[in-house]
Amino acid sequence: MPASSRGDPAPVSTVATDAEADSQAPDPRLIADLVTANRILYDQHVVDAFGHVSTRHDKRPDRFLLARSMAPALVTEADILEFDLDGNPLDSGGRPVYLERFIHGEIYRARPDVVSIVHSHSHAVIPFGVVRSHKLRAIFHMSGFVGAETPIFEIRECVGDGSDLLIRNRELGAALAKSLGPKAVVLMRGHGVTVTAPTLQEAVYRGVYVDVNARLQLEAIGLGAVNYLTESEGRATAAVQATQIGRAWDMWKMKVEGKL
Amino acid sequence: MPASSRGDPAPVSTVATDAEADSQAPDPRLIADLVTANRILYDQHVVDAFGHVSTRHDKRPDRFLLARSMAPALVTEADILEFDLDGNPLDSGGRPVYLERFIHGEIYRARPDVVSIVHSHSHAVIPFGVVRSHKLRAIFHMSGFVGAETPIFEIRECVGDGSDLLIRNRELGAALAKSLGPKAVVLMRGHGVTVTAPTLQEAVYRGVYVDVNARLQLEAIGLGAVNYLTESEGRATAAVQATQIGRAWDMWKMKVEGKL
Amino acid sequence: MPASSRGDPAPVSTVATDAEADSQAPDPRLIADLVTANRILYDQHVVDAFGHVSTRHDKRPDRFLLARSMAPALVTEADILEFDLDGNPLDSGGRPVYLERFIHGEIYRARPDVVSIVHSHSHAVIPFGVVRSHKLRAIFHMSGFVGAETPIFEIRECVGDGSDLLIRNRELGAALAKSLGPKAVVLMRGHGVTVTAPTLQEAVYRGVYVDVNARLQLEAIGLGAVNYLTESEGRATAAVQATQIGRAWDMWKMKVEGKL
Amino acid sequence: MPASSRGDPAPVSTVATDAEADSQAPDPRLIADLVTANRILYDQHVVDAFGHVSTRHDKRPDRFLLARSMAPALVTEADILEFDLDGNPLDSGGRPVYLERFIHGEIYRARPDVVSIVHSHSHAVIPFGVVRSHKLRAIFHMSGFVGAETPIFEIRECVGDGSDLLIRNRELGAALAKSLGPKAVVLMRGHGVTVTAPTLQEAVYRGVYVDVNARLQLEAIGLGAVNYLTESEGRATAAVQATQIGRAWDMWKMKVEGKL
Repeated sequence: MPASSRGDPAPVSTVATDAEADSQAPDPRLIADLVTANRILYDQHVVDAFGHVSTRHDKRPDRFLLARSMAPALVTEADILEFDLDGNPLDSGGRPVYLERFIHGEIYRARPDVVSIVHSHSHAVIPFGVVRSHKLRAIFHMSGFVGAETPIFEIRECVGDGSDLLIRNRELGAALAKSLGPKAVVLMRGHGVTVTAPTLQEAVYRGVYVDVNARLQLEAIGLGAVNYLTESEGRATAAVQATQIGRAWDMWKMKVEGKL
Repeated sequence: MPASSRGDPAPVSTVATDAEADSQAPDPRLIADLVTANRILYDQHVVDAFGHVSTRHDKRPDRFLLARSMAPALVTEADILEFDLDGNPLDSGGRPVYLERFIHGEIYRARPDVVSIVHSHSHAVIPFGVVRSHKLRAIFHMSGFVGAETPIFEIRECVGDGSDLLIRNRELGAALAKSLGPKAVVLMRGHGVTVTAPTLQEAVYRGVYVDVNARLQLEAIGLGAVNYLTESEGRATAAVQATQIGRAWDMWKMKVEGKL
Repeated sequence: MPASSRGDPAPVSTVATDAEADSQAPDPRLIADLVTANRILYDQHVVDAFGHVSTRHDKRPDRFLLARSMAPALVTEADILEFDLDGNPLDSGGRPVYLERFIHGEIYRARPDVVSIVHSHSHAVIPFGVVRSHKLRAIFHMSGFVGAETPIFEIRECVGDGSDLLIRNRELGAALAKSLGPKAVVLMRGHGVTVTAPTLQEAVYRGVYVDVNARLQLEAIGLGAVNYLTESEGRATAAVQATQIGRAWDMWKMKVEGKL
Repeated sequence: MPASSRGDPAPVSTVATDAEADSQAPDPRLIADLVTANRILYDQHVVDAFGHVSTRHDKRPDRFLLARSMAPALVTEADILEFDLDGNPLDSGGRPVYLERFIHGEIYRARPDVVSIVHSHSHAVIPFGVVRSHKLRAIFHMSGFVGAETPIFEIRECVGDGSDLLIRNRELGAALAKSLGPKAVVLMRGHGVTVTAPTLQEAVYRGVYVDVNARLQLEAIGLGAVNYLTESEGRATAAVQATQIGRAWDMWKMKVEGKL
């Protein structure tokens, strides 16, 4: 509880701390973009009432920003909380936080290159998490980031049968991060997908297109043997698409703002 | 017909009866929620012009609340009727009632734990009611309530060939309740699905996600052998999701109210 | 051109003819309903810019009402024309008429019981018109009218290879009517479907649900051997659903009127 | 920079050049239609934030009109640029242009009959570009223009493994045009589709219906052996549909203008 709300005179040290805290506050534009990201992911059918998106703190790499526990479509700037990498909210004001915040903290810890993470139960990816006969792979140039083989996190290997399949502690978060390895995408058996990216905009893009890729794969596999992107085509297409993401972000943003 | 509408002085006994009736009237918030449930189920494509949702009376467990025969999307509070478990409307004012109200009455009778029921012809579940090669099963953590095997009610076993497939009397309602047994979901061959839950909000959630589960199963089966949730994973995920349902309900409610 | 618009005094004989014509004019409510039917079929994705719906004239069974050649979504009362069964418009004012009006005229001629016809290229039915491995059949009680086997009209049997697949004259209309026989539905290979009904509202209902039935069949066939409705279940369900169609029509009408 | 904006008296030669330029300016209605085409293709789910549509200049067959690099849904008349067939923008004012403008330039060069081109990543066509087991073929009369066999452009045959799959120079544009040959449609492996037409309206129509055709084929192939349109049926249906395209264009235009 801050001093001012207890009716006490603010001690000098607290003022200093506040000033320090201000200098460490995340860029308001980043918070605004995170709100937009939540709304885009709902509008693009990546999340429904469940799923979440985070971004690493722009000034403190040992912190990340994530909404309080709520439907992404309804998130506003006041709902964005700051967490440390252990998944502790810095100032939640008693508001509930996502059970699965450890997905974010442990991947940010394990992968310094990752700046944003989307976790969803996006429909088309679920089948690829529950079969062994086909791997989720890049099928077209819009989703080269999927690469040539997507790992599947099997929670039974960590906790055996009978879990609720949720990443509800640091150990499970770390195990998921290990499954992810250096990749952009990890499937979670019977649960969903977690997608990482070097920017918030790109994480949203990847959240959208990993689902499109899965849908296209489902359909192509029904037709016959699929000629997938090679590893190097995946890298080349991912590199060029990364330069085009603003085009999608700007349009999706206009759409959720009712301007399209 | 109430006394006041006949222009007669209200006799004491009637006043007493009215007071008694008032003390037994369902909570207006329950009626409001049932209206919302109808509209959500339409908005989420669980029902079209057909299908219905009921809730057990909050003060009289031998009664349930259900709209008069009409499209769910158009239901208002004035359309909610009270029924006894035999399927008799208490005060319908001559308005037509659903032919299949016996689905509700007989399940409430057989299953004291059930507080709400959704009956729909939700598209993705239909195929699972007409094949023997695959059972509807929980494929991801959002639909653990589906469990490891969903019973199929075959009306031909009750009335032979040539029926209209409707649960149009108490006997058929009881037979359906028997097929359901202690489960949350029962498929009806060539007809639809009936879903039960311990709360109205959860029945709506289950009505939505049983269809999502069926869609995901259809797609996964096309890919190969499916690694389903185990029985105990189904129980554990259903238990934790039950605590999260408000998040979906609140969002769906805002959507049908035009606030999202 | 009416006399009044030529500035001439109206001769007695013309007045008499006008009065006679008035007594034979279709019920304005029927025309209004036909406009609504056009808009519902678009809104429910049965037709896009192509496809049409007609109704038999309520006073002259040798006439039918059909819009001029235009997108169904845009039809207004002024666009409804009257045709004889040969497909001649009575007073088109030079406006283009549908090439395929012979579908309607010849079915009305061959089937005195038919009061309304929907012709569409509704997506899910197309696959059932181009394969021999599976017949379009009733899979659930909402579409019992589909029956146990749907005929396929193969235009090559009439005109050989190289046609434009359109029913562009009376002979082809009569051949299609012959394929239809006493059924409610006939598929047209590589083209679409034609659905008949004893009322306009029921034709719209059937136009919607024949497509739903096809979609569900496509999915069920992917799962395994399908337990279809029997012939007698088809008849029984069709009979009971015919009594419930107002519920769907009223809701669909409210939707296209922006009231839902 | 025009003379007037430099504050200098306009020299005679510049005036003459301006007049000449004016006489060669594209018809403003063509530019307006190209804006509408962009918006229709987005609204009909042919393009998302990516994909483009061009039309040949109406007065200079060695030029074509195409938006600057942006999401098609947001294109306005001010965004339409003029290009020569080498893919050089005439007056882009420094605004970025599409990397893949060479698709357009080289097809216009190779095919004098082509007046408009749509390039998209339309979902249903992608599977047909990555399998050899089934060719994209005309399955119903709305898409006779697809013909009996659609070529697939394999960029690996030009540049080997490791490309970004984009048509990013004249050589690749020419190779794509060669794959297209005299056809209306060419698939691009792991990328999308390019559709040509003799008018802008028809290119939009074909962009929409090539995707519908692919969707219907995917579903029909799941049912069994498909009875496709023959070559001559494809030609006959394409010829008659070409006369009906205004009906679709007008409706789609009203829809993007909010009038439907």
